[in-house]
Amino acid sequence: MEPTRQEFRDAMARLGAAVTIVTTDGPAGRVGITASAVCSVTDTPPTLLVCMNRNSSLNPVVQGNGVLCINLLPGDAQEIANLFAGFTGADQVVRFDTGKWTTLATGSPVLEEAVAALDCDVEEVVEKGTHSVVFARVRAIRLGEARPALIWFSRNYHPVGLPG
Amino acid sequence: MEPTRQEFRDAMARLGAAVTIVTTDGPAGRVGITASAVCSVTDTPPTLLVCMNRNSSLNPVVQGNGVLCINLLPGDAQEIANLFAGFTGADQVVRFDTGKWTTLATGSPVLEEAVAALDCDVEEVVEKGTHSVVFARVRAIRLGEARPALIWFSRNYHPVGLPG
Repeated sequence: MEPTRQEFRDAMARLGAAVTIVTTDGPAGRVGITASAVCSVTDTPPTLLVCMNRNSSLNPVVQGNGVLCINLLPGDAQEIANLFAGFTGADQVVRFDTGKWTTLATGSPVLEEAVAALDCDVEEVVEKGTHSVVFARVRAIRLGEARPALIWFSRNYHPVGLPG
Repeated sequence: MEPTRQEFRDAMARLGAAVTIVTTDGPAGRVGITASAVCSVTDTPPTLLVCMNRNSSLNPVVQGNGVLCINLLPGDAQEIANLFAGFTGADQVVRFDTGKWTTLATGSPVLEEAVAALDCDVEEVVEKGTHSVVFARVRAIRLGEARPALIWFSRNYHPVGLPG
């Protein structure tokens, strides 16, 4: 009765999740990848986690640089989400031509149109099967405008609005 | 420049997340708590994680029972979400009078109206500050009807619809 991978994926398609672009920059290079497996861990000290495929091009670069920035996308950011998901085939250098980028504490790329950007040091990596769970200690925060955010649910993008 | 806890919380309010009820049943007792810090880890083997406050009544019971079920709530489930969040003051026994509950593999309560329920064994617990990160190996899955799901964003509930 153990669920198959396909059954698990079908169930995970129903786990709505924020769409983010996770970036890093440093001696190991500059990379950005669209990711939706991001989770708050604790506010003492401010810590998040992001699950990254061990085969992802982001993974060795994040671990090499020891820093990352989690950029939470606004509801109208489907184009840049697709770009950094690799759907267009654009390489890493070309990707950063889209969007306005700045930096905060670590030097990782910070997307100005993000509803929030969390600039982090890598604190610990726990390996789980095909994925690395990266615990990230927040060093700086940039809050963007209060706007709808982009959610991935049922294998589609959904802008989720602010109330009232 | 280290962000304050309040700054971190304000940023996390912009990290949209699925609303779930995490349940457990066994020798340590039966408990259910509304939680939004759930994340897919890997499909090989099917694994999720949930971050639980170490002061939460759920935490010792989940670790005592060694099992849990993650029930992904549909878009119209704000009432039961509030109930299991403790907003009404209802104790654990009374909470389970609301909703239709069944079981799958582990005996943890499975909410029939969930858009998906993932019944799990606790595989590993990583302590991080105020929170426990519980890695959960999926033993059985129940897919509900394809319906909108409930998302927590900007300190409010938002139903997120299916396309088309």
